[in-house]
This record gives sequence, C-alpha cells and structure tokens, in this order.
Amino acid sequence: MIKIVIDCYGGDNSPIVNIEGAIKAINELKDLSIVFVGKEDEINNSLKNLEYDKSRVEIINADEIISLNEPPVQAIRTKNNSSMVKAFDLLHKDDSVNAMVSIGSTGALLAGSIFKIGRIPGVKRPAFCPILPTMNKSIVAICDSGANVDCDSLNLHQFAIMGSLYLSCSFGKKNPKVALLNIGVEEEKGDMLRKETYPILKEDKSINFVGNMESRELLSGDFDLVVCDGFNGNVLIKSTEGACLEMLKLLKKTFYKSTKNKIGALFLKKDIYELKDFMDYRNYGGAPMLGIKKTVIKGHGSSTSTTVYNCIIQAYNMEKNHLIEQISTAINNSLNK
Amino acid sequence: MIKIVIDCYGGDNSPIVNIEGAIKAINELKDLSIVFVGKEDEINNSLKNLEYDKSRVEIINADEIISLNEPPVQAIRTKNNSSMVKAFDLLHKDDSVNAMVSIGSTGALLAGSIFKIGRIPGVKRPAFCPILPTMNKSIVAICDSGANVDCDSLNLHQFAIMGSLYLSCSFGKKNPKVALLNIGVEEEKGDMLRKETYPILKEDKSINFVGNMESRELLSGDFDLVVCDGFNGNVLIKSTEGACLEMLKLLKKTFYKSTKNKIGALFLKKDIYELKDFMDYRNYGGAPMLGIKKTVIKGHGSSTSTTVYNCIIQAYNMEKNHLIEQISTAINNSLNK
Repeated sequence: MIKIVIDCYGGDNSPIVNIEGAIKAINELKDLSIVFVGKEDEINNSLKNLEYDKSRVEIINADEIISLNEPPVQAIRTKNNSSMVKAFDLLHKDDSVNAMVSIGSTGALLAGSIFKIGRIPGVKRPAFCPILPTMNKSIVAICDSGANVDCDSLNLHQFAIMGSLYLSCSFGKKNPKVALLNIGVEEEKGDMLRKETYPILKEDKSINFVGNMESRELLSGDFDLVVCDGFNGNVLIKSTEGACLEMLKLLKKTFYKSTKNKIGALFLKKDIYELKDFMDYRNYGGAPMLGIKKTVIKGHGSSTSTTVYNCIIQAYNMEKNHLIEQISTAINNSLNK
Repeated sequence: MIKIVIDCYGGDNSPIVNIEGAIKAINELKDLSIVFVGKEDEINNSLKNLEYDKSRVEIINADEIISLNEPPVQAIRTKNNSSMVKAFDLLHKDDSVNAMVSIGSTGALLAGSIFKIGRIPGVKRPAFCPILPTMNKSIVAICDSGANVDCDSLNLHQFAIMGSLYLSCSFGKKNPKVALLNIGVEEEKGDMLRKETYPILKEDKSINFVGNMESRELLSGDFDLVVCDGFNGNVLIKSTEGACLEMLKLLKKTFYKSTKNKIGALFLKKDIYELKDFMDYRNYGGAPMLGIKKTVIKGHGSSTSTTVYNCIIQAYNMEKNHLIEQISTAINNSLNK
C-alpha cells in the first residue's frame, strides 16, 4: 500500500480540486491510500457526494492555512496547526506515510521539506524539478527551477543525477538525455560555473550527458532533462511560459479582430483548444522536491483536479520505483568515486 | 554628415541585404554617407541596378570573410584583409566615420569592438543591448544579452545607465522604465548578485528603476529595459524567441491538419502573417555594443535588407543624439558620486 498525505489548502481552488484529484486517483489505484489534512468539515462536505473506498481515506483536522504572502520559513516554524505543517509532521513521523502532495506556497514547501523532513545524506542541495510539454508530445524536466539561486558545480552534478533517476522512476524514461543549460553548444562556452560543470557531467558515465543546450531548444523534444542553477532555471521556465501565454493572447485577439476572422476561427476552434490544452502546464502534474528523505510534490497554485491527480500519480510512481533509495545510492556512489 | 561603415559580409544573405538596406537608408537621409567594405566587384555588381546619390557612397576592397565558425579573437587579430577587420580599422582611424554596422560573427564583433575600438573610459564592460517587440506594440531592450557571462553589481549598474540612454537616443523613449531581471518581484528576492544590485539601482536617481521583473513579464510592455548578466540575458531572449517560434510551428501544423482547418486558415491568413511579422526579430534592427568608443551595431545573421536598414537608422539616431558622449558623461558622473 502507498499512502500519500494531501495538504488540502493553499491553491486557488482548494480544497475542492485537492479532494477531487485524490479521489480520482484512489478509484484508479487499488493499493493507494490517502490522508487529507485540512478543515475537517469542509473536507467531509466535499467528500459526501463522491464515491470511493472509505477504508483507504483518512482525514486529519487542521484549522489554519499558510498563505502565499507569508514569510515561508516563519510560517513553517510557527503555524503548527496549518494544513501544510500538519501534513509535513505526519510525513516525518509516520513511517507508513510515503509521500506528500501540496499546491500551496512554494517557499513554505521548500522550507518544510528541508526543516521538517531533511536532506538525503550526501545531497548538498535539494532541487525542484518541474516538467514542460515538448513539441514532439514528450516532456522535458528542468532541475533546478528555483530552489537554489546560487549554485556550484557539485550542486549541478547532483541535479543531473537526481533528475535522471526521477525521469526514469516517474515517467519510465530509459537513459534520459541530460543537457547543461548554456549560451552556446560548444564545450568551452559559458560562464565559470558552466565551464566547471561541463567536464564533470561528461565524466559521469552513470548519466546520459549529451552536451550543452541553448534555451531556444527547450521545447524541441531533443532533451529529457535540463540542468541549471535555480536562477536560470526560473528565468528559463517563466520566459517560456510567458511567451506561450502572450502568443495565445495575441492569437485570441486576432480571432476576434473581424467578422471574417471570427468565421475562420470557428473552423479551427476544436484544434486550437487542443493546442491551448497542450500548452497548459496544469495538465502535466507538479514538481518534485528532489534530494529530500521523503517524496514531496508541489503542484501549481492554479492546479485543477487533473493536476492534483497527476501529482499523486507522480508520487505513487516515485514510491513504487523506490526513487529515494535510488537517489541515495547514486549520490553516495558519486561522492565516493 | 553621418558616415557609417558597412561590413558587407558574414550574414546568411550577404552582401546583397547589406547593400540594399544601406541604399534604402541613403535615399531617405540626406545627411548620411556610407562606406561599403568587402569584395569590390561583388559590391559594384549589386549596386549597378540601384539608384542613389553616388557622391555619398564609397567602397573599400576586402577580399577575406570572417566566418561564424572561426575563433573570434584569433580572426580579429589575424585576418587583416577581412571585411570586418577593415571596417573596424576604418572606424578606428578615420575621425569622419561615426559608426559601423555588421551582420557577421557576434564573437568577432565583440572582440573587434574591444580590441580595435576600445571601451569608453570608466565603462568596465561593454554590453550587447538587443530589443524585442512587446504585446502593446512597443519594444523592450535587454542589457546585457551575452557579451558578459560573469558580472558584478557595478557591471549591471552600468548596463542600466547605458541601456537607458540608448533607448532615449535611438528610440526617443523618455525616462525609460528599468527593471532588474529576477526570480520574484519583492526587493529581497534573488541570488547574491541581484540582492547586491537592487539597492544600487534604487539609489541611482539618474535612471527610472521600477524594481524586479520576472521573466514571464518580458513581453508585457510594462518595462522598457531589462538589466541582467549576459548569461541570464541570453537564456531570457533565446527561450522567448524559441517558445514563440515553436508556437508558430504548432499553429502552422494545426492549420494544415484537415480540410476544415485549411478553410479556416484562409479566412485568417492576412492577420496571421501580420502576427508572424510582428514576432520576427528581423524587423526590429540590431543590437548595439554599448560602452565602446564608437557606435557599433550588430544585426542578426539572418538579417533581411529591412533589418540592415533598421540597424543603420539606429546607428544614425545614436550619432545624431550623441549617445557615446552621453554615456561617457553619465558613467563618469556615476563613478565620481
């Protein structure tokens, strides 16, 4: 049995999307059980019209919510009755609980992962590893996307190891292609950090390092994992998302510009919606916090029930395939070389 | 009279686009003269069917071309008969020559700017400052976009000063809104470099610093100048361009997917072309190398004659408005504070 604790608050549409997403997963996977943490009345209210195996669902009451505007470290340290802190406490103390999913404050989730759960021995810095859809209908993961703004080459090397194992455990990618985010493809390109990191990644035969990647290739589908410091990872993801959203807005404007255009748009409607869906990161699950002693997945604040469902499936697969143990072994092998 | 030297080689469609773009500018601006540098026969051949005031056009022969694959510093130091080196030599030695436009190797142009022309006293690092179109039909400039991969806060401060003056001299932007590229909008966000730079920009009343900008806001039109190190700047621009291009590709695929879609696309054709044109950076001129003693503009390798024309107009405006002198004064004021 895989037991996953769900922090029911913190998202734009919480707790309803958290609950619906989890129940969908419960109904699909017979060896999954769920612990909901949050306001008991509200959770019961959301559950009452849903059908599911009640023996695999528990509720733990938590009256407080950590909001997006709170200083994260302080919130984790002081809000002991919040749904997120109570979920972390359960994950930490209860050996039967395998994983946690939250769509709340990223900063608080990062702080909680480090202070409440702790790093896998040998991991210098845990990292967020979100995924984006690519043009060949595959995915690309970015590690780190913002947990660590100042990094060294050892951090980047560990991101490459952890991200590779994540892709193989969670998505069944064999031998995922790892690229170093850089400003040119040639080996000698980049700043000091990239010049130092390149030979380390090239040397490590446990990963499938394919060289530097320029940011314009992110969505090409030629790479499975992009390794970068959290500052550049954040710039990379947000500019890609931003540009796609602005393009969709422009397209919408074009469609409504004239009667002629409106007619044209009618013909295309179905496929344009598909295009929009394809670019919507809410359809692609969440970002794991890699390098932590237990599985923690962060979904986007504007997650739908499908996003939460996908986050749970990710966590379930990571546990089924023993990602934490694999990371622990690989990191220790790499440090002992 | 403003005299601009054109390196006629190095672009995908050189020398024809270089020559046609320059002649268009000559025919429009009565106080502009042009010096073409490159293979004399080919240039004369391209010119023979064009109409223009011959008294304002000179040709200097150069038999060699610096290719994109050559090590830039070595090329600048050894290829004395190349069109780029000869253009630099003329710009350096001839006081009557104000500016240079090239669509050749970026690395070679950077090396040539530094070794052949030199920095304005006080400028620690020259920077590239390209522009992108925004959603409100304005532009946004990014400084630095790749000339300096490892930067300190003084570099970033100078990029803010130089970029602001460039926008006002070349595009008539009054009091341009300057943002610091960061991973959150709050003052305390970011890595060490951003935390160090923020108060310096905030303190400097000679620029209109409006705070941090997240990369997803790049095309919003809310900012005129984005200040960043060359590594982030490169990631930012290339991921934005990459995402826009991939979206256009997907759109094209959608249009051709079925007969129904093809009919719909016919109705929209004109406006979609406009959208594509709007996103095409070749319509927006080039990137100046700011902080160099003379005006140097780099156009994209795939420049059209319109791009070259726009580059020349940029250079002309910079000279008309004495950008170099303004940068020199502002940098010295800032260092003497």
